This record gives sequence, C-alpha cells and structure tokens, in this order.
Amino acid sequence: MSNTEYQLVLLPYSTNLEQELHKNPESLPFDEILYCNIGNPHSLGQQPVTFFREVLSLCDHPALLDKSETHALYSSDAIERAWQILEKIPGRATGAYSHSQGVKGLRDEIAAGIAARDGFHASGDNIFLTDGASPAVHMMMQLLIRSEKDGILCPLPQYPLYSASIALHGGSFVPYFLDEETGWGLEVDELKKQVDEARSKGITVRALVVINPGNPTGQVLAEENQKKIVEFCKNEGLVLLADEVYQENIYVEDKQFHSFKKIARSMGYTDDDLPLVSFQSVSKGYYGECGKRGGYMEVTGFNADVREQIYKVASVNLCSNISGQILSSLIMNPPKVGDESYESFMVERDGIISSLARRAKALEEAFNSLEGITCNKAEGAMYLFPRLHLPQKAIGAAQAAGAAPDAYYALRLLQATGIVVVPGSGFGQAPGTYHFRCTILPQEDKIPAIISRFKEFHEKFMDEFRD
Amino acid sequence: MSNTEYQLVLLPYSTNLEQELHKNPESLPFDEILYCNIGNPHSLGQQPVTFFREVLSLCDHPALLDKSETHALYSSDAIERAWQILEKIPGRATGAYSHSQGVKGLRDEIAAGIAARDGFHASGDNIFLTDGASPAVHMMMQLLIRSEKDGILCPLPQYPLYSASIALHGGSFVPYFLDEETGWGLEVDELKKQVDEARSKGITVRALVVINPGNPTGQVLAEENQKKIVEFCKNEGLVLLADEVYQENIYVEDKQFHSFKKIARSMGYTDDDLPLVSFQSVSKGYYGECGKRGGYMEVTGFNADVREQIYKVASVNLCSNISGQILSSLIMNPPKVGDESYESFMVERDGIISSLARRAKALEEAFNSLEGITCNKAEGAMYLFPRLHLPQKAIGAAQAAGAAPDAYYALRLLQATGIVVVPGSGFGQAPGTYHFRCTILPQEDKIPAIISRFKEFHEKFMDEFRD
Repeated sequence: MSNTEYQLVLLPYSTNLEQELHKNPESLPFDEILYCNIGNPHSLGQQPVTFFREVLSLCDHPALLDKSETHALYSSDAIERAWQILEKIPGRATGAYSHSQGVKGLRDEIAAGIAARDGFHASGDNIFLTDGASPAVHMMMQLLIRSEKDGILCPLPQYPLYSASIALHGGSFVPYFLDEETGWGLEVDELKKQVDEARSKGITVRALVVINPGNPTGQVLAEENQKKIVEFCKNEGLVLLADEVYQENIYVEDKQFHSFKKIARSMGYTDDDLPLVSFQSVSKGYYGECGKRGGYMEVTGFNADVREQIYKVASVNLCSNISGQILSSLIMNPPKVGDESYESFMVERDGIISSLARRAKALEEAFNSLEGITCNKAEGAMYLFPRLHLPQKAIGAAQAAGAAPDAYYALRLLQATGIVVVPGSGFGQAPGTYHFRCTILPQEDKIPAIISRFKEFHEKFMDEFRD
Repeated sequence: MSNTEYQLVLLPYSTNLEQELHKNPESLPFDEILYCNIGNPHSLGQQPVTFFREVLSLCDHPALLDKSETHALYSSDAIERAWQILEKIPGRATGAYSHSQGVKGLRDEIAAGIAARDGFHASGDNIFLTDGASPAVHMMMQLLIRSEKDGILCPLPQYPLYSASIALHGGSFVPYFLDEETGWGLEVDELKKQVDEARSKGITVRALVVINPGNPTGQVLAEENQKKIVEFCKNEGLVLLADEVYQENIYVEDKQFHSFKKIARSMGYTDDDLPLVSFQSVSKGYYGECGKRGGYMEVTGFNADVREQIYKVASVNLCSNISGQILSSLIMNPPKVGDESYESFMVERDGIISSLARRAKALEEAFNSLEGITCNKAEGAMYLFPRLHLPQKAIGAAQAAGAAPDAYYALRLLQATGIVVVPGSGFGQAPGTYHFRCTILPQEDKIPAIISRFKEFHEKFMDEFRD
C-alpha cells in the first residue's frame, strides 16, 4: 500500500465507518474512530495557544484596537503585540498582498527569533514566508531538479511529501536508510554509499533531506552526528535541506534541538561554505496550527542568481497568507518574562509538551509490552513507528488479500478497534520489515482506551496467525 | 519588456525611488509614488468590509463567543455567523487541517451562494477551496498539460498568470486576440482560426481560458457572446476555464455578470455535456482581501477518474488556509435583508463599487482626452488598458534605449510623475500596438492629482517626440 493507496483506501474506509457509526451506533464493535494517522493536533481536541489567537483576532479586525472595551476581552500584551505587528505591515493593511517573501518587518522578527535560538546572526532577507512547509519544499524541489538525472537524497522511512514532490518535479528519489537498531540513526557511511551508487548510475545528487526531529521515526539527532552530516554535505557539494518543523517537539531530557545552521556556524562555516535551507511551520510544535497554513524557510549560502530564482518562484503565487505570516512571527517570538501573558502562556505550552511526552511514553511502553512488536522511543516529533514482527501465516493472509502485510494489519486494526494508523509501506521501510506510524496526538484521556483496545486486538491477531 | 522584466526592473526601480523620496524628499519632481500597477486594493487604502472581518476575528479566537463583553464589540449577526461557521468545522477546530477540498459545510454554503446567484443547482462536492485563484489555476494546468503538445487557448492581452502557469507545466500557450476595436470583443471566429492553426502544428488544444470581466482589458462579455463561446467549447471538445474573479466588479448599467455555468445550464447543457471550471477569489470584488489568500474553483462536467486526479493534486498541500476558506463562504453569503449588519454592509459595499466606477470613468475620460491615446471603457474588473499611438520618434528613442516602446513610456512616466503602470508588453498585445495597464484602485481623492500629473507628463512627452 503506497501512501496514495492509503489515502484512497484506508482513509475513505475510516470515513465510511464513521458515517456508519452515526447511523447505527450498535453495528460496529467500537463507539468512535480514533484517528492516530495524521499530525493534526487541533482535530483531536488540542486547544490553540491563547496569546497567539488573541493577536490574530486583533489583527483581523484592527478597528478593535481603538476601542476601550477591547481591554476587557484581550490581554494587554496581545493588544500591544497587535499594534507592533500592524506597524510592520505597510498601511496596516492585513488585507493586502505583501512582498512575495512576506512582510519585511515580520521576516526581521523571525530572523531575530532564529538568532536568539541559535546564538548566530540571521537576516530577514533570507526568510521566505510560505503557506506551510509543503509549498516551501515544492519550491526548492522545483529549483533543484532539472531532469530525472538530478537526484535528492531522502531518508527511508520518510514523510512522503518528499517522494511526492520529487516525482512531481521529475527528479530521482535517492533513498538512504535510517538504522532502526540504533534508534533510527543517520549514518554518514550509509549516505556516502547511496551517493556513490546513485552517481554510478549517472545521477547528479544535488541535495540531502534531513528530517530532525524525525517523521515518521521520532528520533532527535545528536550534535556530533549533525556535524558529520554538515561535513558530508560540504565535501560532496550538496544542498542541505533541513526539515526542522518539529523543533519544539522534544520529549527526552538528554536530547536538545540544534538547528543545522547553528551546527554549521559553530563549526566555523559561513554563508560562503554551505547552501542550507531550514523549513519551519506553524502546524507543528506546541502550537499545532495546521489550519493556518503558515511557515517559512531560511535560505543561506546561495549566490545572488539562485536567490533571484527562488524569489521568482515565490512570486508566482504572489504571497503567502498574512495570518500565517503573523503567526510565524509569533511562534518565533512568543511572550517573554514580564509580559502579562507570559505565565499563562508557559502553562499552556508546557502543558501541551509534557502531555505529549507522557502520551509518547505510554504508547511506546504499551507497544513494547506486546509479543511481536518492538518500538523505538519517540524522542521528538509527534509519532511512534513500531515494528511488526508478523508471523508467516499473517504475511500469507495479507498476500492472499492482495495487500502489503502492514496495510493488512492496519486494516484489521481499524475494523476491530476504530483505531486509524498509517502502514509503514506509506513511508518506505527496509525490505522485509513491517511497521505502522501512530501519532501521539489523541487527548490524554483517550490513551488508556487506545492502549487497551490495541492490546486486545493485537493479542487476538497474533493468536489467529501464530505459526 | 516581459512581465518578468517588469517585475525585475520597473518594480525595484519604483521601490528605489520610494526609498529616495524618504531620504531626500526634495530630490524628485513628485512627493509620492502612486501605485497603479497591481490589483491590491487594501495596499492603497481600501478598508476591509467590517462584517467579514468581525466574523474572521471571532473565528480566530472562539473563546470570545462565550463572553458577554463580546456583544459590546461585535455585531450580533457576526457573532451568530461565527457560531454557525464553527458548527460546520469538525470539533470547531479552525486550527486543524480540513478535508483537502476544504471544510464540507463551507463548501455547501458556497454552493448555495452560487445557486442563488445563477438560479441553477450547485453542489459543495464540486467546490475545491484554494489559497486564492492562482493555485487553482496551477492545479488545472498541471492536470491538463501532459506535454508541450498540449495547448491552452488564452486571450491576448492576458493576465500573465496563465502564460506563466502553462510554461511551468511544460505546455503550449495558444493565443487568441481580443478585438480592441469592438471593446476587446472575444470573437468565436478568432478562436476557431487559432485552434485550427494550433492543430495544424500538431498541438492538441485542451482548454479555453476566458477572463470575464477581463484582465487587463476590463470588458464584460455579453450573454449572447458567452453562449457562442460555450457552444464552441462543446463542439471542439475543450475544457472551459472561466476566470470569474471579478464577478462583483461591474461598473456599467447595461452590463451584468453571468457565470459561464449559468449560461451553459440556461442553454440546456448539463454536467454530462461540458467540462467547466469557474475560478473565484476573495482578492477581488468589493472585498479585495488579497492578503487572506482565499478562493475556490467550481468543477463540473468531469468524469470520476478526472475528479479523483483533481482531488489528489489538491491533497498534495493538505488544505487551503481556514481563514481564507471562511472568507470564501462569507463573500458568497454576505449579510441579508433583516440582518443587523445588512445596512452598514450595503453602505460599505456600494460605496466601494460606486467609487470604483467613478474612478474608472474619470481615468478613462482623462486618457481619451489626450493626443495619441485611445481607451476602451472599463466595464468591469479593476483596470484600464489604454492604447498609446506613439510618434515614430518615441519608438526610435525606445529602441535606442533597448526597451519596448510601451516599457520606455512607462519608465519615463514613473521618472517624471511617480505613477507606476504596467507596460502592455507584459500582457501581450497585437503586433505594432502599444498599451499600458492602469488600475482604478488609488483612493478617490488621489485621482485628480494622478490625472493632472499624467496629462502634464504625456503632453510634454508628445511635444518631445512629435514627428
């Protein structure tokens, strides 16, 4: 089951089941569909961060800022921030097209946030605001891929946006495998092997995609590992495309997020040494604002000609949506100590992150407690990617049903429990291995039911097919 | 000067002049840059429609709906509408990805608005919500164009989104000329001639683009003319791509907007007879909300396979932004008689449209009063496209400067007056003719100054180059 087949078969099937549940609540062995398939936190009840929404609400209706009653409904720092943001927008016109890279003042604010995060200079001129990270990835693929002879190195398993975008732009997908044994480790030896192999087939490898924290694999790269990856890109002349949309989603004490730009700068590499693109999105993190379609890419180390090409591609759709632009500036410059909203903001933020960490741990432990499942820790991101060690009889039953073994498992799981997960074959996996991706996003009070339903199903499944 | 050259030369130049003005107000012969180049109403001071912004503001911060103080700041029907909209969004989660076509309840509301406008049935299943009309056009081009042998019929002059998108997707641009003599008439004879010529070169003509009201030409098609166009598409087996984003921008008593779907249905053609796509946007009309990036396409007359392909393409970027989706539903279902906001809404709406009509008329009359300029009426849209009958000496001077004659004129105009227009060569024009596009969007109190500065410049220019 490819990702497309998953979208066209498993998802519509879950929608049908949902409709069936509404019509005949007694007809199915469960009382609700539990969506563990996509990274869409608000759809599962995660609440928006109040400060961010206050500012967006004020910027959407600036006439409120002149009214005294507004102070009864909005925090004073949200009102102040809305004023500051409107001052950055020419004519305070949130309804106007902006510069195709995004509002300059908002880009500068984002750059200041990056500099504060990394301890290295960042410039608003290098920021391209986009309608989420996906359009930014497409823009870069459009620029990098000239023909099927141009290859892009991508992890396997990978978030299928990358394979889809490479296919859309007519390039070659050059996979490198993450090592499940070492917690989805990204080894430079493996990168080198795959680059050499691709080159031997006449492919010009142009860029390396790294997703950190990983999707669907949830690992957080160690600083030493990141340095080796930077060195590798430098030596091989590759553009480093760093998908860093989960930078706020870290759940373990001993790991920290380091941007690849920070790593490169800490190694002494400047803008002249390494072309590097970092993707960020308002859809992930503790904010999870998928519906706002906001994000940016920070583009460094390209010459003026390429920069102009990027700008031209960005201009084709005029500009990204202004609410998404504003929200991008807010996530990179949240309330600070002393602001009226600071304490309540921190309660909301830490509440979401610590709850996600508890959910990740509970699900991981549950999966690991079961016969025939092994599961690496979710150090970050929003996913677990457990491995299914399926009995031969189950694999045979899947083949007889014309499905990939993990797709067969996912379908049986859905039919029995209403839990929706994505088969590993949608992301790519090492030959002969089977997985599924399960988000950690259902609200915490649902987790015990998910675990018990899952366990019951899995035990029966194993009993049914035990060799 | 192509459109790209215009973007890369004339626009940066106007930005430089603007910066120069800030630094040395006395250094230039004018005191402000007057942007008559893009259809971006709010950037020139047009105010947003209050009701629309109230609803957006409430949907961005739904917690407001539970507070009594909210009634002091928002109209009661905006509060009610926000409730209704949130009810249509699963989990009231405006921060979640929606269905890739957009929120079903909002699509149904848009379909009801289309049905009320046209008097013919419309279905929410046929609506694809998008981040403005541009991504919708790109989606259709991606689907229609398989190789350079696939051609798309487009008007000349045309809004360059179409040529850019066809080039991006590797197809062939097949132009048909609008007849300036008959008010930018669209003649079926001309369409037939161009289709036959393209076919003789081995091009498979797949679709016809019609922009109504016209951009950059401002004409509104007559009903009889539209019927002939529908008949032509039916006979030739073409997909009709109807750019109807200016449907609310009509400035003359004797013309009305008719959607191509209404025309086709009134001729008795059903969903089985004619593949038809209508593009609509929140960026134009009396609302002019360019920065919100909202819009939709209504897709009818395609078989299930093609529909599935459209859905797959729509899925690649997950969904369009939810604020844009909400705003799309609002423009297709504005306040009605009896609603608290109705009267103030109508005052805002009619104020904008009647002012645009006065501006269109004033500019048109001014252009037509000048030696060497003829200008068709702006019946609709946001533009005038005056023709420059340039003296041979001026054409020679342009050639000596290495510029297209209309680009040379536009540059001289900018240098002398600060007025920014787009040279006709950016849109394509009949060989040997020269034009420029001038928006009717500067606020009404600026129009007299624009006219007098323009007149003064033009008279001097003609004196300088008179043969």
